[in-house]
Amino acid sequence: MTTNKPLILVCNDDGITAPGIRNLVDAIKHLGEVVIVAPDSPQSAMGHAVTISKPLRLEKTDIYGEIQSYQCSGTPADCVKLAVDKVMHRKPDLLVSGINHGSNSSINVLYSGTMSAAMEGAIEGIPAVGFSLCDFAYDADFSYAKKVAAQVAENILNNGLPHGTLLNVNIPKATEAEIKGIKICRQANAKWKEEFDERKDPNGRKYFWLTGKFMNNDKGEDTDEWALANNYVSIVPVHFDLTAHHAIPFLNKWNFSI
Amino acid sequence: MTTNKPLILVCNDDGITAPGIRNLVDAIKHLGEVVIVAPDSPQSAMGHAVTISKPLRLEKTDIYGEIQSYQCSGTPADCVKLAVDKVMHRKPDLLVSGINHGSNSSINVLYSGTMSAAMEGAIEGIPAVGFSLCDFAYDADFSYAKKVAAQVAENILNNGLPHGTLLNVNIPKATEAEIKGIKICRQANAKWKEEFDERKDPNGRKYFWLTGKFMNNDKGEDTDEWALANNYVSIVPVHFDLTAHHAIPFLNKWNFSI
Repeated sequence: MTTNKPLILVCNDDGITAPGIRNLVDAIKHLGEVVIVAPDSPQSAMGHAVTISKPLRLEKTDIYGEIQSYQCSGTPADCVKLAVDKVMHRKPDLLVSGINHGSNSSINVLYSGTMSAAMEGAIEGIPAVGFSLCDFAYDADFSYAKKVAAQVAENILNNGLPHGTLLNVNIPKATEAEIKGIKICRQANAKWKEEFDERKDPNGRKYFWLTGKFMNNDKGEDTDEWALANNYVSIVPVHFDLTAHHAIPFLNKWNFSI
Repeated sequence: MTTNKPLILVCNDDGITAPGIRNLVDAIKHLGEVVIVAPDSPQSAMGHAVTISKPLRLEKTDIYGEIQSYQCSGTPADCVKLAVDKVMHRKPDLLVSGINHGSNSSINVLYSGTMSAAMEGAIEGIPAVGFSLCDFAYDADFSYAKKVAAQVAENILNNGLPHGTLLNVNIPKATEAEIKGIKICRQANAKWKEEFDERKDPNGRKYFWLTGKFMNNDKGEDTDEWALANNYVSIVPVHFDLTAHHAIPFLNKWNFSI
């Protein structure tokens, strides 16, 4: 069905049946014509992986009733690529990804499948945003996150986004009464301190589980981590030009004898 | 064995037996104590994926003779995390990743497993660089790429890198005589135009292969694409702060009623 309403593509990384994406669809469906293309199984921490060494499956589902939805065997970035090439009748006006079960603030933007879907949208020239609720629970309370998602989506549809920019929106785990507002932030310079849990399998062979502690040494009050710790929603504008422009003069002083 | 020589971690995404990593080890082994931790199978296009939903294996191998080497069942980013936590006796002085069989210029930096290993190193505070030869062939000629790798590695060991910066080095597919030199560049604003190849399996069910055309509409002569097209080696300094700082004032004008 072709309409004049905004065309909105919905994706995530927790899989098409996750409560987060169901809440996101519910939050934004009044804003336009919605099409869902999401992974058929959880794809957390997939970063910006794409599937090149095996074929992809894409199946229409009816789990969203009247709303068109497709499940895909690939990564979040695959979902967006397939949606743009094979599902959508025109370029979407908006891509919303999430709502992720768990934070994607700071350095997690790099590991996040939720954000890779949004980034793939931005690369395709689609205004895009990823939403994450800082609560890993399956039965987390998405009611305030839904309000944030609706308002951010509406702002993007009304105002657009600067070329090549997408948004990383994180919502603190707090009650609506506790939340102080919304802050536009920069990505905090924080990282994970890895600690692999070493175990033995039933055959006596060693294996490792990735665990770790999140370490934030960035004391700036303009960061997403500061905002979330102080019960603000954080919005970080993100781009996919990874060039460290400030380092170019330093490198131009190097000598090469080739 | 602990020495006073620089400690160099080597990783890649094509797998521990690929010609590219064997050539890289050969190119830099005179510069310090080398430890190899690389995937046990090809991990191309894994982006910055990490493995959280299954355990990892890490096995010592002897395929590099005297040089310590380990194969890991995870992604390139997993390899670096495991190396730092479980293999290296101290923080490495340098991480080199590659030499990738195929370009990682422009937007490919986001999809690249080679670059995700280097980026993980940079996040860990290790000076890091990814090398890619613009030739997908298994039997590609790595002789000039080896010279580039040795000189870049030596420059990093001597001069360091600005905090939080890593390097994305691409070497054109050309003879040494044809190559004009080395250029410090920015990431070209180019993208892939996806075209999924739609097929039917023996049971009549549809499946898709990702293919695509690389589209470069960035005419700048300061980009990696321009350098490579003109037979220069491209070096792009890369960082992991994805904040689009220039977009913050635009977003601060938005209105939210929550």
